[in-house]
Amino acid sequence: MAKKKETKKPDIKKTIIALDAMGGDHAPEEIVKGGIAAAQDDELEVVLVGQEDRLEEELVKCGYAGDRISIVDASEVIEMGDSPVWAIKNKRDSSIVVGIDLLKSKEVSAFVSAGNTGAVVTAATLTLGKKKGVSRPALGAVFPFPAGPILCLDIGANAECKPEMLVQFAHMGSIYMEKIFQIERPRIALLSNGEEESKGSPLVQKVHKLLKKAKINFIGNAEGRDLSRGIADVLVTDGFTGNVLLKMGEGLGEMLLNSLWEAVDGNPKLNEAANVLGPVLHSVIGTLDYTEYGGAVLLGVDGIVVVAHGRSNAKAIENAVLKAKRVMEFGAVEAIRG
Amino acid sequence: MAKKKETKKPDIKKTIIALDAMGGDHAPEEIVKGGIAAAQDDELEVVLVGQEDRLEEELVKCGYAGDRISIVDASEVIEMGDSPVWAIKNKRDSSIVVGIDLLKSKEVSAFVSAGNTGAVVTAATLTLGKKKGVSRPALGAVFPFPAGPILCLDIGANAECKPEMLVQFAHMGSIYMEKIFQIERPRIALLSNGEEESKGSPLVQKVHKLLKKAKINFIGNAEGRDLSRGIADVLVTDGFTGNVLLKMGEGLGEMLLNSLWEAVDGNPKLNEAANVLGPVLHSVIGTLDYTEYGGAVLLGVDGIVVVAHGRSNAKAIENAVLKAKRVMEFGAVEAIRG
Repeated sequence: MAKKKETKKPDIKKTIIALDAMGGDHAPEEIVKGGIAAAQDDELEVVLVGQEDRLEEELVKCGYAGDRISIVDASEVIEMGDSPVWAIKNKRDSSIVVGIDLLKSKEVSAFVSAGNTGAVVTAATLTLGKKKGVSRPALGAVFPFPAGPILCLDIGANAECKPEMLVQFAHMGSIYMEKIFQIERPRIALLSNGEEESKGSPLVQKVHKLLKKAKINFIGNAEGRDLSRGIADVLVTDGFTGNVLLKMGEGLGEMLLNSLWEAVDGNPKLNEAANVLGPVLHSVIGTLDYTEYGGAVLLGVDGIVVVAHGRSNAKAIENAVLKAKRVMEFGAVEAIRG
Repeated sequence: MAKKKETKKPDIKKTIIALDAMGGDHAPEEIVKGGIAAAQDDELEVVLVGQEDRLEEELVKCGYAGDRISIVDASEVIEMGDSPVWAIKNKRDSSIVVGIDLLKSKEVSAFVSAGNTGAVVTAATLTLGKKKGVSRPALGAVFPFPAGPILCLDIGANAECKPEMLVQFAHMGSIYMEKIFQIERPRIALLSNGEEESKGSPLVQKVHKLLKKAKINFIGNAEGRDLSRGIADVLVTDGFTGNVLLKMGEGLGEMLLNSLWEAVDGNPKLNEAANVLGPVLHSVIGTLDYTEYGGAVLLGVDGIVVVAHGRSNAKAIENAVLKAKRVMEFGAVEAIRG
């Protein structure tokens, strides 16, 4: 078992969220900063999980003197390249295993990590257990498009999916959007390469038939172009396609902004216009990048787990922690069962 | 057999391209306009295939008085919702069947259609035949990103793929990019949900192993975010994922422009900046939308077939015809064999 050493006693009346301080490309610096920013919320306490000495050092560097951050020691670090199952078995004192254990023992209300996604999903599934009727948990990310928010799932927990799994994703997605966004009978769409029932991979064709019989508001297939059009509240897909889609959005946002700056370079009039428009452009193009607004929620496990992107900066981590709090307040994870 | 009636004799010395005048959401008006625009190219002749009376009417409406457009009559129209195999069998005098027949009999050098993609693919495969070693043709679309053009295939001909098919796509893509863009040993990437060989759906994992042994410049897996980063010349994927990806790009471009105009609405300063920047923004965001620059080439059949998007306007059709000419000139389709 992981040894736990609490350096400060968290106030039990507040929402306590465990934050994997060692996970992600910019750990622990940006994670600690993000945790501090999130803890500006009066109702929140953040437990940093990771190598105590380093984390104490980071807190000092940041000049943090408050009492809403505590540290739970975890000496090991699961690397991005580690095999999830191997890592969970062999790095029992890692920040991911220790953090999930804190959630299991109800010492914290949620766990947030920007570390190895597979390891987080595996540890959560094995330790917290799955909700009744769920064969595999799914990662759901909400895109806040102007036409309306849309939850995409699975965006990466399961590269291989059976038809029944996608039906479960649809059910979980429906409950999530109902709870978090107070949407009555959320519209569920199935991602395909055409609207007609006959379109799609063999998997999608089978799922379409099953969803038609499911007790949810299934509106049929949606295409890639429908993602941002506000026609559905939930977009169901397998974790392979969902992950490709999600990451394409990230890359495109970056590419568009770079191209734009290149295009206006050397033309003072265009450059000035781009500068004036800069913040608007960033916010519009930012909707493509889920990393900017809080990561993905692991649906189907018995506990609140939020997976932030590996390259999360402090702002993304802050958003992920606040998202975990919101998910808790709205009881979305509790409401899910098979 | 389809009855063919040529109203004007095409000059055989030029490149003659058959254009499906009845296919697409804006047929025949926009198709005819696009054909006329493409025929501004001195080296081109366009054969409009479709209902002769309507097409003659359209030519008159457009005030076309040149001699580089001719009409080949085809009385039937394959609708977007028609089942491809059924349509090819039962609508023998449709613009798609007649157009492909013109290509088969070498009366034209290429066929361009914005009609029912499945019907075009099926007719081309059955009538023209497949290249040696190709089990299924694939649709390839080139994105002209600032970091470099990238050919994605398959983007929609095969929703279900076997590992061997993706390996063939990789070979065809390599030859295409070598010929069209004069790239030596094009870099071939496999679309996956992670860079590591162990990542991916079962299909992708199998394909990865096969590509490592193939005689092409395979650089490994690429993620969705890599699409626009210039790291590869060819991105190989199954037709389901490719289609989803492609259509997501379309939708996002539209969404971004709409959001931008909404965001600046009511703020004169921002509005002015957006107006100044408008053309640049459109061109930058336009790179997401393959419909703007000429549709997809059907690789693996014995003939040049370009599939334009169903919602193609005149400009998109013009680009598709010019793309067909370019493919012919560079001998990319001829060079492909298994």
